Amino acid sequence: MILFTGLCAVAQSSEDNKAMIKKINDEVMTNSGAYGNLHFLCKDIGQRLSGSPNALKAVYATQKMLKDAGADTVYLQPCTVTHWVRRAKEKGYFSDGSKKTDLHLTALGNSEGSGGKMVEADVVEVKSMDEFQQKKGAVKGKIVFFNIAMNPVYFRTFRAYGESGGGRRSGPTLAAEYGAIGVLVRSLSVNADDHPHTGATQYNDSFPKIPAVAISTNDANAMSEMIAKGKKVRAGFSTDCGVLGNVPSYNVIGEIRGSDFPEQIITVGGHLDSWDLAEGAQDDGAGIVQSIEVIRALKASGIRPKRTVRAVMFMNEENGGGGGRAYADNAKQKHERHVFALESDNGGFTPRGFAFDMPDEKKSKIKEWVPLFYPYGVYDFNDSGSGSDIFPLKPATGAALGELIPDSQRYFDVHHAETDVFESVSKRELDLGAVNMTALIWLISEYGL
Amino acid sequence: MILFTGLCAVAQSSEDNKAMIKKINDEVMTNSGAYGNLHFLCKDIGQRLSGSPNALKAVYATQKMLKDAGADTVYLQPCTVTHWVRRAKEKGYFSDGSKKTDLHLTALGNSEGSGGKMVEADVVEVKSMDEFQQKKGAVKGKIVFFNIAMNPVYFRTFRAYGESGGGRRSGPTLAAEYGAIGVLVRSLSVNADDHPHTGATQYNDSFPKIPAVAISTNDANAMSEMIAKGKKVRAGFSTDCGVLGNVPSYNVIGEIRGSDFPEQIITVGGHLDSWDLAEGAQDDGAGIVQSIEVIRALKASGIRPKRTVRAVMFMNEENGGGGGRAYADNAKQKHERHVFALESDNGGFTPRGFAFDMPDEKKSKIKEWVPLFYPYGVYDFNDSGSGSDIFPLKPATGAALGELIPDSQRYFDVHHAETDVFESVSKRELDLGAVNMTALIWLISEYGL
Repeated sequence: MILFTGLCAVAQSSEDNKAMIKKINDEVMTNSGAYGNLHFLCKDIGQRLSGSPNALKAVYATQKMLKDAGADTVYLQPCTVTHWVRRAKEKGYFSDGSKKTDLHLTALGNSEGSGGKMVEADVVEVKSMDEFQQKKGAVKGKIVFFNIAMNPVYFRTFRAYGESGGGRRSGPTLAAEYGAIGVLVRSLSVNADDHPHTGATQYNDSFPKIPAVAISTNDANAMSEMIAKGKKVRAGFSTDCGVLGNVPSYNVIGEIRGSDFPEQIITVGGHLDSWDLAEGAQDDGAGIVQSIEVIRALKASGIRPKRTVRAVMFMNEENGGGGGRAYADNAKQKHERHVFALESDNGGFTPRGFAFDMPDEKKSKIKEWVPLFYPYGVYDFNDSGSGSDIFPLKPATGAALGELIPDSQRYFDVHHAETDVFESVSKRELDLGAVNMTALIWLISEYGL
Repeated sequence: MILFTGLCAVAQSSEDNKAMIKKINDEVMTNSGAYGNLHFLCKDIGQRLSGSPNALKAVYATQKMLKDAGADTVYLQPCTVTHWVRRAKEKGYFSDGSKKTDLHLTALGNSEGSGGKMVEADVVEVKSMDEFQQKKGAVKGKIVFFNIAMNPVYFRTFRAYGESGGGRRSGPTLAAEYGAIGVLVRSLSVNADDHPHTGATQYNDSFPKIPAVAISTNDANAMSEMIAKGKKVRAGFSTDCGVLGNVPSYNVIGEIRGSDFPEQIITVGGHLDSWDLAEGAQDDGAGIVQSIEVIRALKASGIRPKRTVRAVMFMNEENGGGGGRAYADNAKQKHERHVFALESDNGGFTPRGFAFDMPDEKKSKIKEWVPLFYPYGVYDFNDSGSGSDIFPLKPATGAALGELIPDSQRYFDVHHAETDVFESVSKRELDLGAVNMTALIWLISEYGL
């Protein structure tokens, strides 16, 4: 009898879970506010570079969105962010001595500009970080061209991004160490096109902060072909940008207080800042409006979560991480109990899974829920990982972490480029991310980990 | 000893299969010709309505593409197709008596036009086929407005398409049976936008062939709101189109002859014709260039399939099915042995699975291969179904059937509308479809069913 009752309870619970997740799905797919909120962030505000007036507009806009979504407490959390600015538009060219070809280029984020002066020199091409090590003795006075192509064969494009990103992240400071005067980086895009993709570089204070730009993949291919033909290639470029310092800004936070265990906190978030070339639609307007939608969907479905659910709009993910650190520091100081944190910062594409960073016994528990997600496109809970904004929360509070894994085929078409606009986002794809995020947050709010 | 050897052989075979599918993936993701071929079909040719000069251009273009891909035999297979034409651009309006609002509209495929004259009458709205049955006594002399919205809650948008498509498919002939003089159909799109989506309607010869148009979802919503306010709504529209008759055309076929069982045929295909409003990029240029890529990928990977692999560009899927019938009739007449046929006609989006129409024991065999596809995004072999071009092959030859199931969130944004252009297709998504199609075709060519 006991066994029989037990089985019935489990079965009942599973049916209840299914029904609740269907309710969440139907609410989001019918009434979601995510796409409208994204339109506002992209078209009424636009780019949201940390420290800019637009970033502050986005703080107040999402504060209002969280209130409208039904959060019972909405507040701003002070943080300190890197204030980098791009002034005049970059110019540049490459040449084999006979004719000059204009470069499609953009200064790397956090890079110091050339003060608008043309940096000109012969080009040394390297196709990998290893090749740089072989050629580093020959880069003095030169412009180093990090032509590290993303590998197209991986289904997960983030794997190629990780493997090929060294040139952008550490290329400028490495090149400076060996006397180079400037750096060109092949844009981190799988496609051959004309869009330069920016992104942060990190200088080492021991070496000169030399100017550095990303160039389009088409330009990178053309220049590389020229070099492969044995031609001596010269390039020049000017940039006008730089870090002004650290300035105050805010994370924006909206909560639904838990009914049974209000002291246990579940965080869901994305980042509010964006690069300045477009509208930050996929990166990461999507994660922002999905996180707000988690709050709205719970309220609109009449769900009072047992644990506190907190949506966090992190500031400064792109070029400093000030928001993520402030959130973790605050949690630690207040001795908050953080059960779980979920980040959406991989674009608003159709979801396929979640990655997790948590002890195996918790992961085993969470994996039992896979069948509940399968009807809504999520089938893969196998990856490890989380996101850079919630990452500091683990050492600070011991929180279990996770991130949404959407399909990544189109992400690097728009990532950090002028193509990251509202029109690149599909309403249904965006909303399906919110469905699965809300379902996971609800399950953890109901059952803990 | 026997058991041990047997296990080794299975393990070895599984590793070999993995290695071969990785080889196929790397070849396609690095060197695919699909996107370039799609560009040609969309931009150098454009729309490919059956019977049109463009459809014939597409026949010759894909004949050349199949030769270039390395097919050892390429030929044209005569078929008879419906020749429907759209002449003058449609015009239309709706009004509550005070002001007229222009309609975004397009004649339904295969519909007979009004000869350019305005059809004007009061509007009777129905929101389901059941509601039409309740109101059919009141439609005489009226314009029936089939306002059957696609249900947004399904992950598989084709389910909503199937449920809501009755108005377009049989609405005009039903309305005519009860004396209506014209039909407006809500476009089969999940989104609220201004694009009308065409598609075939089917008249019953017993009733008048009344003019019928699809209107945009925004127009449908506006008109419906007006009616909900109790206003008497009148509409008018003119169309100039009609079926000219049946005309000769072609399927285009390219083969790689099997090394061990050349008489066993595996078909892979899509449809070459398209509607006339755009470029037929997702529907079904994608399936065409993926099927050609299957041939190219096998050749370029140095794979000689054991069974014959045949890529078929079917003509006339959209408004007659002449190509599919001719292919099946031909196979039957020649007593060809068809092992399997695979269709790609659900858009060139990231693949998620395959649907199958075959006996359970074959399905069980095929399901053992799921883990081989998992690294390339395909995880779901649970659906039943195939495609309309290969469907006649089952009664004709007993062939097992299947279809590629890509993610369907964006499909009905572009389906049969002016938005179905090259730019709506992602190169990587398209190529991943070709990877998984080639892998499945190769496995069946190697092991049979």
